[in-house]
Formats: sequence, C-alpha cells, structure tokens
Amino acid sequence: MGKLLVVGSVAFDSVKTPFGEASNVLGGSATYFSTSASFFTDVNLIAVVGEDFPQEHLEFLKSRQINLDGLEHRSGKTFRWRGEYSHHLNEAQTLETHLNVLETFRPKIPDHYTTPSALFLGNIDPELQLDVLNKVRRPSIVACDTMNFWIDSKRDALWKVLEFIDVLVINDGEARALGEDANLVQVAKKILSRGPKTLIIKRGEYGVLMFHQDGIFGAPAFPLETVKDPTGAGDTFAGGFMGYLSASGNYSESGLRQAIIFGSVMASFNVEEFSLDRMKRLTREEIDSRYHSFKQLTHFEALS
Amino acid sequence: MGKLLVVGSVAFDSVKTPFGEASNVLGGSATYFSTSASFFTDVNLIAVVGEDFPQEHLEFLKSRQINLDGLEHRSGKTFRWRGEYSHHLNEAQTLETHLNVLETFRPKIPDHYTTPSALFLGNIDPELQLDVLNKVRRPSIVACDTMNFWIDSKRDALWKVLEFIDVLVINDGEARALGEDANLVQVAKKILSRGPKTLIIKRGEYGVLMFHQDGIFGAPAFPLETVKDPTGAGDTFAGGFMGYLSASGNYSESGLRQAIIFGSVMASFNVEEFSLDRMKRLTREEIDSRYHSFKQLTHFEALS
Repeated sequence: MGKLLVVGSVAFDSVKTPFGEASNVLGGSATYFSTSASFFTDVNLIAVVGEDFPQEHLEFLKSRQINLDGLEHRSGKTFRWRGEYSHHLNEAQTLETHLNVLETFRPKIPDHYTTPSALFLGNIDPELQLDVLNKVRRPSIVACDTMNFWIDSKRDALWKVLEFIDVLVINDGEARALGEDANLVQVAKKILSRGPKTLIIKRGEYGVLMFHQDGIFGAPAFPLETVKDPTGAGDTFAGGFMGYLSASGNYSESGLRQAIIFGSVMASFNVEEFSLDRMKRLTREEIDSRYHSFKQLTHFEALS
Repeated sequence: MGKLLVVGSVAFDSVKTPFGEASNVLGGSATYFSTSASFFTDVNLIAVVGEDFPQEHLEFLKSRQINLDGLEHRSGKTFRWRGEYSHHLNEAQTLETHLNVLETFRPKIPDHYTTPSALFLGNIDPELQLDVLNKVRRPSIVACDTMNFWIDSKRDALWKVLEFIDVLVINDGEARALGEDANLVQVAKKILSRGPKTLIIKRGEYGVLMFHQDGIFGAPAFPLETVKDPTGAGDTFAGGFMGYLSASGNYSESGLRQAIIFGSVMASFNVEEFSLDRMKRLTREEIDSRYHSFKQLTHFEALS
C-alpha cells in the first residue's frame, strides 16, 4: 500500500498579525500539508531546505511519522517569507520573499516514493508539477494547488497540469483569475471542462465551495473566538482533505464532502496559534469532536 | 390572528451592474421585505411615497396581498437611490440619495396594525424604530435591521432599540462596526449581552451566520450561474426569514435555522434579475424546490 506523496515548500516564516508576531518560525506549504495529513495517513514529503534548517524541526516532522527521505538538504539558505495581516485576516501582505534554495529546486523522487496512493502537488512551478506527475505511477487521486504568479506567468503549463489531475484546490481570487470570470459557477464550468473532476475553492473565513460533476457542496468556516495567524490555513486544509481521502479510500462525492469537513477542521485548529504550534498538541479526539461540531453548525431540518 | 408588520422605505432605484442597468425601478427595504414575506404570510406595510408613485406599483403590492393601509401618500417625491456595483457584487457604491418624502417620515400606525404577530423594523432612524415599538402590542417576535449611518450617528438610540428586540439582522461590516471588534464571535457575544437573543449576520455571496444562545448556525449562499442585481438581497432575505417564522410560529433555534434557509432561498431568486422582476413570477413550488437544493448543497455524512 502506497503513501500520500506531497511536493511543496519548507520555509521559515516571519508573520505579524494584530494578535502578535513570530519570527523565523517553521512554515511552508509542504510542512503545513504533511503535518495536517499525518493525523490521518502516512506521508512522504518532497521538498528542499538549506544548511540553516535546524534539527529541532526535523525531529518534529519525524515525530508526526512523516517520511523525510525526499527532503533534500542543499548548501545555502532555506526559503524565507515575511508577511503581515491586517484586522481582516483573509489576505496576507507579502513584505519579503527570499527563495534561496527553492530557486533552483528540482524535485528528486526516491524510488520508494514512486507508487503513491495519493499525490498532492503543492504550489510550485507548474513545469515542476508536470515533472513529478511524469515520474510516479498514477495514484488513485491527484490534487494540485497553484497561485496567481503561475496563473499569470505559466498559464499554458498550468492548464497542461490540470489535464492530468482530479482535484484543483485554490482560493477564490485564483479561481476567478484562472477562469477569467467573476462568477464562480461559470469559473467552475470552465475549469471542470479542462480536466479536473473536482474544483475546490477556499474562501478563508467564509469557508469552502466544491464543484463536482455530481453537484455543488458548500461549507462555512468554523467560527472561532481566537484567530491568531491564518498562515498555512489553505495547506492545512488540503492536508486534512487529502489525508482523510487517502486513509478512507472513498473518493465518491460523499467521501469528498467528508474530506472537506476534515480539511476545514484542521485549518480551524491551525489558525488558533502561530506557525504549527496548535498542530503540535492536537489530538485525533479533538479533530473528531470538531467534525461533530461542524455537523451541528450546518444542520437544518428538511421540509416535512 | 395578527399579521407580520414591517416599517421601512419604498423607493425608486437606479442601478448599474456589469450585467445591465435599470432606471427608476421599484425598490426600497419595505418593498423587498414585504414582497418576499408575502409568499409565506399576510403582511401589513408602513412606509411613505410621494405623488410620483405610480398605480402600477401599488397594484403589484396589492396583488401580493400586502395590506397598504399604512402606506402614506404625501405631497412631494418618493425616496430615490442610485448606485453601482462592480464585478465584485458584494457591495454597492451609492452615487445619489434623495430622501425626499422620507426625510420627514414619521410612521403612522393604523389601528388594525397595532396587534401584529411579528414585527420587522427596517433600516430607518432608531428613534423612529423605538416609536413604532412603543405604539404596538408586543408581538411574538421582533427583528430589526440598521446601517452604518445609524451605528455612527445614533449609537445610543440604537442600543436602546436592541434592548427590546429578539433578532438583529445586519451585514458583517455593520456587525463589526456595532461590536467594535473584527472577530464576529466576539461581536456576537457583545451584542447578545445587550438584548437580542439572536444575531444574524448577512455576508452576501458568502452566506449567513446566526449566533444564538443555543448555538451557532452557518449557511453558504446558493451558488448562482446568473447574478444580475444584488439590490434588495438583504431585505428579501429578512422578508423570507420573518415571513416563514410568522407563518410557522416556530421560534425555536431549529425553526430559526429553517427560516434562515427560506430567507436565503428568497434572496437567491431576487438577485437573478433587476428590481423585483424575479419575484413577480416566482412560485411557492420553486421556493420549496430550492430549499431542497440547499439541503443537498450543505449535506455531509456524520462520523459513523
């Protein structure tokens, strides 16, 4: 039985929000994704770090049973991001980006990673995403993220990636840019006609929409009394989503809906503290309990 | 058995959206509210119009069985609003406001209106809302809307109104302004401690949140392929919400959740066309069918 394979970034983040700040803390799309997924399934990680990446963070990832054979150690510095959020926590303002070792990153796939049960192509150059797709045996489910930078600069390569994937997971601004339409239903029609069977649109504090050939699913975000740091919420969502799917093996529309709730649960915990601090003491019991709370949050009686 | 009483505005709107425009068409909070509510219950309307208000619009409201004994006809012109929406349809830019006869409006309540079963205080001066509250026998449920203008200019009178109502229905910007906090859970705590048992926060294309002493309810908006004109969506929502409650008499938390879905259904129809055009040919069968679609939109399996 294969594992959930993720390719993405590992980073140092410096984040300031109205509720505090954190400097040079553990971050990166693959870090958030794999940590979140590790609560559900076994994860193989492909990413790159520099010489400055401390043993402490490696130990944390290992403690989550994440396989790090695909984590390349290069000379130079780890990718760094610095950003700030205003009271409206839905969008970060990027203040600094230092790609460092990420600039020349070419994913290398260990032999024992090449038969994954599920694959998540994190937000990297679509040409590298294609490269990874070509190097592994087709898994049961492939999902992919991207960002406006690639939508603008490598649109053709990105559409090529989309031909080969099952689920595209992006935020609403990215969906509108990719679909070139303000209406998300129209955007979904366009994107689903080009390859993916499922489009998941992340809307931050407003929740998630899923467009699927068998219907549309909408879920609010979990209302939280404390939101300290939204960094990594999208990747944590994707990790819970793919982790649950990979563990359950249920890729039906109904299974995708449950996976979206688990993704939303994971994201809701993650934003309660800075970096991955909340993940470090999260339990499976807390996850299932919040899934149940989501059911209470959204339930209403059908017409009699 | 009393009726649902609403006090608010009747207006001529001129609206431009990326999908067309309409000049001097029927609008106003009480118009949208009462039309929407009329699909569920009997409505008594209190508002004011000028000499320029045409028979055609009166005939339409009468055709919806709305009682117009409380619609005052004054010399002068009817309230006029002109606004524009960008591709992001969630917020209107107001270009012109002519209060006209609304400027000196003092709600007059016909004797047979003074024992309502339910009361909706539309977005008018909180001092006039208090005046209406003092002149009617306390109904089973009172809901109220407001806007940033009153939150800024008549905060004390508004808090006074809130002491006497059951449900406050406002949008998220207004909620944050009134609660003086960016976090909606904190805002809800503050507002619910000052009187209302229920706070409903309208989030346009992102749906609705309800905060109630017995729990929180969240529902997405219905994803639509065509949204031509969001004008009146909030009042149409409130009309469906109060209309259903007034008809069912079920004010439990579970009943409120159903009412929110009916409100969302009504708003989703209304934005499909300009002014109240969609309402003019809407049927109860279409309403119940979309309620059912809302159930499909939001359903997911509980944990086994």
